[in-house]
Amino acid sequence: MKLLLRLSYLGTNFCGYQVQGDKPTVQKALNDATRSLFSCDCDITGCSRTDSGVHANDFCVTVNKKGSNSLETSIDTERIPNALNVRLPEDISVKSAAFVDEDFHPRYDVEFKEYVYLVYNGRTRDPFLSGRAMHFPRELSENDVVRMNEGAAFLVGTHDFSAFMASGSKVESTVRTMKYARVEKNGNIIKITLAADGFLYNMVRIITGTLLDVGVGKTEPRGVGDILASHDRTLAGMTAPACGLYLNSVVYPEGK
Amino acid sequence: MKLLLRLSYLGTNFCGYQVQGDKPTVQKALNDATRSLFSCDCDITGCSRTDSGVHANDFCVTVNKKGSNSLETSIDTERIPNALNVRLPEDISVKSAAFVDEDFHPRYDVEFKEYVYLVYNGRTRDPFLSGRAMHFPRELSENDVVRMNEGAAFLVGTHDFSAFMASGSKVESTVRTMKYARVEKNGNIIKITLAADGFLYNMVRIITGTLLDVGVGKTEPRGVGDILASHDRTLAGMTAPACGLYLNSVVYPEGK
Repeated sequence: MKLLLRLSYLGTNFCGYQVQGDKPTVQKALNDATRSLFSCDCDITGCSRTDSGVHANDFCVTVNKKGSNSLETSIDTERIPNALNVRLPEDISVKSAAFVDEDFHPRYDVEFKEYVYLVYNGRTRDPFLSGRAMHFPRELSENDVVRMNEGAAFLVGTHDFSAFMASGSKVESTVRTMKYARVEKNGNIIKITLAADGFLYNMVRIITGTLLDVGVGKTEPRGVGDILASHDRTLAGMTAPACGLYLNSVVYPEGK
Repeated sequence: MKLLLRLSYLGTNFCGYQVQGDKPTVQKALNDATRSLFSCDCDITGCSRTDSGVHANDFCVTVNKKGSNSLETSIDTERIPNALNVRLPEDISVKSAAFVDEDFHPRYDVEFKEYVYLVYNGRTRDPFLSGRAMHFPRELSENDVVRMNEGAAFLVGTHDFSAFMASGSKVESTVRTMKYARVEKNGNIIKITLAADGFLYNMVRIITGTLLDVGVGKTEPRGVGDILASHDRTLAGMTAPACGLYLNSVVYPEGK
């Protein structure tokens, strides 16, 4: 059996998820903590890669002993989260641990992932949201948010999303299926929620930039559909900054 | 006329509000920013002092030219907040600016202040609340929160609060009037809200420790009244950590 961990992390002080030499990354912190707890070198396989400054409310990794396909330990499974947390920096928290079949793969087995992008829509900055939301000071009204939702609706379904992929990215297919895409405003916080079976590089951040163009009236809602159909990155909006992006949940098929 | 600023700040990286030589403090940051914007040395007078690591959602300061009792500037008042914010670190934000009478005093004129203490009541830590709430992993039920509120009710009114003051503090009177004291649980967050005409040193943090004792059943609700009447600090609970404390609002009498 492999160990499946669900964790959350504040990405601000990490150079992303994936190991990059000795730089502080989430994967490196997990390597160090699991080696200390289980007294062996472990392979940590993540559900995704997140960029520098990107956060996760729900991130899944599997842990197995290096050179093996399983992990053996006498530690009670329910004690593993806190036993790892005392070995991890404060900006990572293991929320739960469970043993899963050896053929489970945290990335390939994903049914869909939900990302949230947070925009702080206040005139003056909020120090509690520094590094945790994009500051967009131009006020967007309820009606602007309605139009953003009209634009977002064009993204739902199976499409070639190459207009919303960072230029220069290499990927076999740029077709993805978007389950839902919605925009909500609650006080000064605008929350953009997107769920899909997969995401292209910078896809959520480029969609956010494009929906903000709709919000301010630079792009009509139906323009989102036109941009999608064009497959042309240069027609979409700016790439919103990393700090507002959260991997919010990772869903596996039932029985996995 | 003096300038009145309302600001918020994340206290994590400050050695409290008040200037302490060259250490990073909120007052020092305001000294530097106002000197740069108004091209003169200014006196910054705050509504309160906050300790290292304590936050403010609403903090008031007045600004006047050093050696004078007023401030003259040709900058539009409504442009002052953002003009100061570009000169301040990201963990401080000036939310509003207004000119007030020269006899206004941001500390002596306070009618009442509201503090909030945040407790994160989850089994595993939340990386997004590190430095922003006290982690209390033992689960408190709705019923425990009801009892905490019963205990908090004993604090309302005019009392000698010396049992809830850090020992060794020097103050002329330990009598304060508590307007309201309530405990709410929302998901994993327990929020303790206290409003009074003044607070003794560490008062909110010691009351929080005492109410948590009520929550876990170590102290009966009526025990809060007994502790209050005893004037004995040793009978009250522990001093909850600074990181969960927020100066939430500062209210001045109408016409001030």
